[in-house]
Amino acid sequence: MKRFALKGQICYSSDLGEIKVMEQGYLLCKDGVSAGVCQELPESWREVEVRDYGNRIIIPGFTDLHMHAPQYSFRGMEMNLELLEWLNTQTFPEEARYADLDYAERAYTIFAEDMKRGATTRACIFATLHLPATKLLMEKLERTGLKTMVGKVNMDRNSPDILREQDANRSAEDTVIWLEENGDCYQNVKPILSPRFIPSCTDELMTRLKQIQAEYHLPVQSHLSENRSEINWVQELCPESEFYGDAYDRFGLFGGEDCPTIMAHCVHSAAAEQNRMKERGVWIAHCPESNMNLSSGIAPVRDFLNKGIRVGLGSDIAGGSSASIFQAMTDAIQVSKLRWRLVDERLKPLTFEEAFYLATKGGGSFFGKVGSFEPGYELDAVVLDDTELKCPNSLTVIQRLERICYLSDERQVVAKYVAGKEVFSLN
Amino acid sequence: MKRFALKGQICYSSDLGEIKVMEQGYLLCKDGVSAGVCQELPESWREVEVRDYGNRIIIPGFTDLHMHAPQYSFRGMEMNLELLEWLNTQTFPEEARYADLDYAERAYTIFAEDMKRGATTRACIFATLHLPATKLLMEKLERTGLKTMVGKVNMDRNSPDILREQDANRSAEDTVIWLEENGDCYQNVKPILSPRFIPSCTDELMTRLKQIQAEYHLPVQSHLSENRSEINWVQELCPESEFYGDAYDRFGLFGGEDCPTIMAHCVHSAAAEQNRMKERGVWIAHCPESNMNLSSGIAPVRDFLNKGIRVGLGSDIAGGSSASIFQAMTDAIQVSKLRWRLVDERLKPLTFEEAFYLATKGGGSFFGKVGSFEPGYELDAVVLDDTELKCPNSLTVIQRLERICYLSDERQVVAKYVAGKEVFSLN
Repeated sequence: MKRFALKGQICYSSDLGEIKVMEQGYLLCKDGVSAGVCQELPESWREVEVRDYGNRIIIPGFTDLHMHAPQYSFRGMEMNLELLEWLNTQTFPEEARYADLDYAERAYTIFAEDMKRGATTRACIFATLHLPATKLLMEKLERTGLKTMVGKVNMDRNSPDILREQDANRSAEDTVIWLEENGDCYQNVKPILSPRFIPSCTDELMTRLKQIQAEYHLPVQSHLSENRSEINWVQELCPESEFYGDAYDRFGLFGGEDCPTIMAHCVHSAAAEQNRMKERGVWIAHCPESNMNLSSGIAPVRDFLNKGIRVGLGSDIAGGSSASIFQAMTDAIQVSKLRWRLVDERLKPLTFEEAFYLATKGGGSFFGKVGSFEPGYELDAVVLDDTELKCPNSLTVIQRLERICYLSDERQVVAKYVAGKEVFSLN
Repeated sequence: MKRFALKGQICYSSDLGEIKVMEQGYLLCKDGVSAGVCQELPESWREVEVRDYGNRIIIPGFTDLHMHAPQYSFRGMEMNLELLEWLNTQTFPEEARYADLDYAERAYTIFAEDMKRGATTRACIFATLHLPATKLLMEKLERTGLKTMVGKVNMDRNSPDILREQDANRSAEDTVIWLEENGDCYQNVKPILSPRFIPSCTDELMTRLKQIQAEYHLPVQSHLSENRSEINWVQELCPESEFYGDAYDRFGLFGGEDCPTIMAHCVHSAAAEQNRMKERGVWIAHCPESNMNLSSGIAPVRDFLNKGIRVGLGSDIAGGSSASIFQAMTDAIQVSKLRWRLVDERLKPLTFEEAFYLATKGGGSFFGKVGSFEPGYELDAVVLDDTELKCPNSLTVIQRLERICYLSDERQVVAKYVAGKEVFSLN
């Protein structure tokens, strides 16, 4: 039974609208799990190691609910395109390069090192369709100490020969091989079923993936209602579907108790689709920077929250250029203000407190009890040093936290813990 | 006659839609002015000092056309408000503190140090209404080596007692004292007339300021059509004005050859106002981050450009949280995409090349021949080292530049020159 405590300016969410602050508080960790936050060490904890971070701020680690590791290599480039053109001219050719394991080695080394250094402690990640490169990515992520879910991508139609599986059968067989070889061998990395999106997957493939999902009890990640052309295309490809999300649901790959599912984007999800997501308990990965870069639009996050749909944040590397969930938070707030002003004044903008919740507890819930310091939560913690952000005033802890989210990046992260294990510490 | 050359991967705008690249080029500097960019040193330049920056990228320095130095202290905080409430609850109380010169000393030291370190070489800056603090700001900025215009703010109505000048006469008299004491004594810092905005300035004050403007041949900066409530208020205050901009124009403080003027925001400027700005040669400071944070909306920049209106970028510290014009560039691109998608599909989004132009030559033109490396331009140059942004691919210089704009900050700035003088160099 391993116990220790972190001391500092502790901030975390319990509810959507509030950030709890304990100044000079103790965050108790027992076997990787929070035993709560308190102002004084309890009697029975007097002997444990206390790591005193002084005036630094300690927050739960962030969850990135949606990113594409192979796209990290071209983040921040060629951003003058919309989704479908961008996929064809930038993304697919780049992902095809991961057939070359030497290239994958170079690229995923950079990705894993940067992931280790940032404020993210959990992430759901698309790899490519290639088995060796996906295995390599999993090995590299395993060593970072972050807890991640990684998906070998399935795609057997509507992409160029260089990045398409031969047929449904081959895609399904490869998936089984991948799961047999990688499903259970990592402590930190778990597999997640990753049909790219409806346009990339034949009905036969979706049927086979459902069988695999059920047999291996896998979670699922995919894309939904990101772009109008994409939505129209899905309607052509699946004329019998009521809406885009229904095209997943018809194959049993759209949430439900035995099939935890993340759908990225949901920019254009109308009421029926939202209601289905609520019914099925689907998590939405809100990716505001990507939705700007690819001119997709602004997801109605307030609507999702009002309906009680599960929402977290995603960087969507490389639709998004930045892997920083700090930036995803402020982007989410900013675009919600624009949506309020320009689209629908009934849907109030997100507050800072709400964005913080989405970045931590909202997305973290896909991993179980993750994203808060309430007792029983796995202890993912990030220690932030904002002394470089000079200020002539004395600030409250909440002011400092808000400022950090607007102005910070990995420079301010001086220590990181995942499930109670120190991933790194600069001191 | 002082000459030297910078060598590296040189990028600059000549026209709106294009970035010129000279790989391993020489940027020639003579008496602080560019003598052009060339692939080989001309015969007559063979003896001059060449500072070889190798594979680093050399771009013109950025111009920040709109920022409030006293607000730097609370950037990234209390961002859940709209303009008028934000002014009353956050901005005015904070600006009032600059009556205290000790406070101003602490705050402006931080501001000036950070300005020196970033990629900005020129800026138009609001101070507060206080003379001693404004003088202090000018002194501090002088020492950074940046070329700036600083304005003592004029405001004689509609603000709390703690931050309002007694009357028009007092405001005008203080302005004359400020100009007499500070107008001509700096090499790098020049005064700019800064009526806060119409709601803060009585007609009498505006009349007096025009006299001062004409007598001292001052440029002018103010705010325009940022927020709907503000616009309605101006209409109430100046019922005779045709539109908000006309309320400035009636006093002769809205451009024209003898009165170079920057108007910040122009989010809601309709055709008549745009046409007047075009006629008068007014510069628009487009401040996309601020316009998101304060839920103001998205300025129709494409419209401005189509009409041939002068446009540059502004951080609008602290409506904007970041003083980085890298961020203003990518924010400008991103919000233009949202505007295209959500508001008006006739106005195409800004391209990367256009945003780069706005950040350099567009805003720089307010300072004369500034913001390019074409012959005759004052040589403001920023040297960028992107080796920290690792990539498994070899990238073109333009790809690197775009990536830098999405992902970089002052960390990548390794040297900076203003009008041919080295401001700092890390090597």
